[in-house]
Amino acid sequence: MIDPADLTARLIRCPSVTPEEGGALVLLAGLLREAGFEVHRVDRGETANLFARWGAKGARSFGFNGHTDVVPPGDPASWRHPPFSGHVADGVIWGRGATDMKSGVAAFVAAAIGFVTDTPPDGAVILTITGDEEGPSRDGTRAILDWMAAEGERMDVCIVGEPSNPEVMGEMMKIGRRGSATFRITATGVQGHAAYPHRARNPLHALTRYLAGLIAAPLDEGTAHFDPSGVQITSIDCGNPASNVIPERATAVVNIRFNDLHDGAALTRRLTAAAQDLAAQTGVTIEVQADISGEAFLTRPGPFVDLVRDVVAKATGRVPVLSTSGGTSDARFVKDHCPVVEFGLVGRFMHQVDERVPVDEIHALTGIYRSILEEYFT
Amino acid sequence: MIDPADLTARLIRCPSVTPEEGGALVLLAGLLREAGFEVHRVDRGETANLFARWGAKGARSFGFNGHTDVVPPGDPASWRHPPFSGHVADGVIWGRGATDMKSGVAAFVAAAIGFVTDTPPDGAVILTITGDEEGPSRDGTRAILDWMAAEGERMDVCIVGEPSNPEVMGEMMKIGRRGSATFRITATGVQGHAAYPHRARNPLHALTRYLAGLIAAPLDEGTAHFDPSGVQITSIDCGNPASNVIPERATAVVNIRFNDLHDGAALTRRLTAAAQDLAAQTGVTIEVQADISGEAFLTRPGPFVDLVRDVVAKATGRVPVLSTSGGTSDARFVKDHCPVVEFGLVGRFMHQVDERVPVDEIHALTGIYRSILEEYFT
Repeated sequence: MIDPADLTARLIRCPSVTPEEGGALVLLAGLLREAGFEVHRVDRGETANLFARWGAKGARSFGFNGHTDVVPPGDPASWRHPPFSGHVADGVIWGRGATDMKSGVAAFVAAAIGFVTDTPPDGAVILTITGDEEGPSRDGTRAILDWMAAEGERMDVCIVGEPSNPEVMGEMMKIGRRGSATFRITATGVQGHAAYPHRARNPLHALTRYLAGLIAAPLDEGTAHFDPSGVQITSIDCGNPASNVIPERATAVVNIRFNDLHDGAALTRRLTAAAQDLAAQTGVTIEVQADISGEAFLTRPGPFVDLVRDVVAKATGRVPVLSTSGGTSDARFVKDHCPVVEFGLVGRFMHQVDERVPVDEIHALTGIYRSILEEYFT
Repeated sequence: MIDPADLTARLIRCPSVTPEEGGALVLLAGLLREAGFEVHRVDRGETANLFARWGAKGARSFGFNGHTDVVPPGDPASWRHPPFSGHVADGVIWGRGATDMKSGVAAFVAAAIGFVTDTPPDGAVILTITGDEEGPSRDGTRAILDWMAAEGERMDVCIVGEPSNPEVMGEMMKIGRRGSATFRITATGVQGHAAYPHRARNPLHALTRYLAGLIAAPLDEGTAHFDPSGVQITSIDCGNPASNVIPERATAVVNIRFNDLHDGAALTRRLTAAAQDLAAQTGVTIEVQADISGEAFLTRPGPFVDLVRDVVAKATGRVPVLSTSGGTSDARFVKDHCPVVEFGLVGRFMHQVDERVPVDEIHALTGIYRSILEEYFT
């Protein structure tokens, strides 16, 4: 049997900051092969990825998805215990990836190995683990899914093991995600002297009015399964050192997290139309460049969602809210392959200094994953 | 004799972006010494300055004031001819400083040398030329005037040779200036993930609303001798590279040119009060730092103003408007020393890409300065 807490600590000791593999996938591949899984490294570009299947190809299958890469630790001196030490004390494991999400990977690997060893099912268990979820995500889970399609491999359903609970185990699972789009907005006017504005066209005035319009009112009030869409200006930059000069150009970056009332193309049209209106009023050119990193999606409530919810409720005493909140995850790729939900640990310390996880929670999550597998194959 | 057009081109080739001297004052000092001027470098701090007197100390004296420093050229690739090339073609000289105001300096230097050489006056001609008018202006003309006071040097009247004509030679001279104040506005919020804005406070949203309020309506409608006051946002900067992160801090720079309805202290109170209002609404701290570079002032019409106006009218066929429009100039310091007016070239291309000046205008201005000297000493 694999101890999922011990496996978490060993994974934390693999310094797998994106795109480094750091030994994490090599460690998992060894354990899974030993337990009878068929294991493939599905690397693409700089990214290392792992596909593992127990059971026959083409059989009814249950999938898990996760990642072993982590965000950088920042200044190691700020940490109470070194970020790649996997230090264990008083029932807590410390280190980068402790919650996001080496513990989640350890939990589903331990649950899957335990399940197929103790009660070999009539079907297949498939694990898809990437080394690039925190980075550009071009050659990570997408590469595994591309490879699976080419090889005729498929999951019938999938759980992404990302932290899904804000504060306590069992309070939330995710059945979809808002979309995310980033817009780079460049305003180009006419440079000139600040005392003679009628001879110049100030791009910062046009940009300020444009952005003020964008944040003046919410995009919507939310929908049945989704929070309201949100607009955040994340940078405005001009770099004009001379306070008596009206600059020629300024840029802003706007990130929009949008629900199922919108899609990337419609938002792009909307922001572009507003830019054209303001350009017509001010004579300042406003260019909008869109980068749609994910569309909104929803796995509609049904038997698979119910199964996960019921197991979580029984194990934790809490009926998890069916949420679509938060950032993006690789569920945005998996959803094109099969129904997907997300359930994992408490995400409180994600991406922070002193990221850590209680050993008890890892065991609880492993138990939940095991019960889900048992229910699914009954 | 000095050719003022040739001297303009030579000065443009000195890359004297504030606070660089760039060789410009060294070039002028040589020419003036050769023509019999007593020349002193009056450097202070990082700034190079030049004082030159022809004639006896303490004699009745006519002064000129100007600057050889220039604003940065921006992206040199945007220029038709390199900004420090002093390229001459088809009767036009191209480059940063072509109108503001290496040509004006060249014109009064050439006029003064020609005048004292051809018709030595019973009196003194004094030239005060600074290397910091476009920058902080702390150690520029102020340093020269401080030095003159200490040395017992004085000008009885002074012309500042800044471009004073909006479109054609002779249409405008300046008898005062609006004040100028620069405000550095720093908004400090709480950093966070762009998908969880309720856990953060976005300083860019507060700053955008603050600035939109500032430019929404004019400050006033103007007064008897003054244009309306004007507000220009000259930079906004944040420098946040991560589009999924709400930044902690952002800054804006706002320049206000104000007439005699305002003063620097009252404007500072007004911007600070607006910042406090918005801070109370948003929870984002907004700090306002004021730098009052000059209060509004006026040189009332009288004999000296009449002399300049009459010479300009005779030379150009246009009676110049007595204006207080435009930016600040070092006249705001000279006005505490002696009566001062401003007359120079057409300022159309000041601070712009492809700044340029017709050779004919430089010769016309040189002729006007020469006639003013002749009239003054008759």
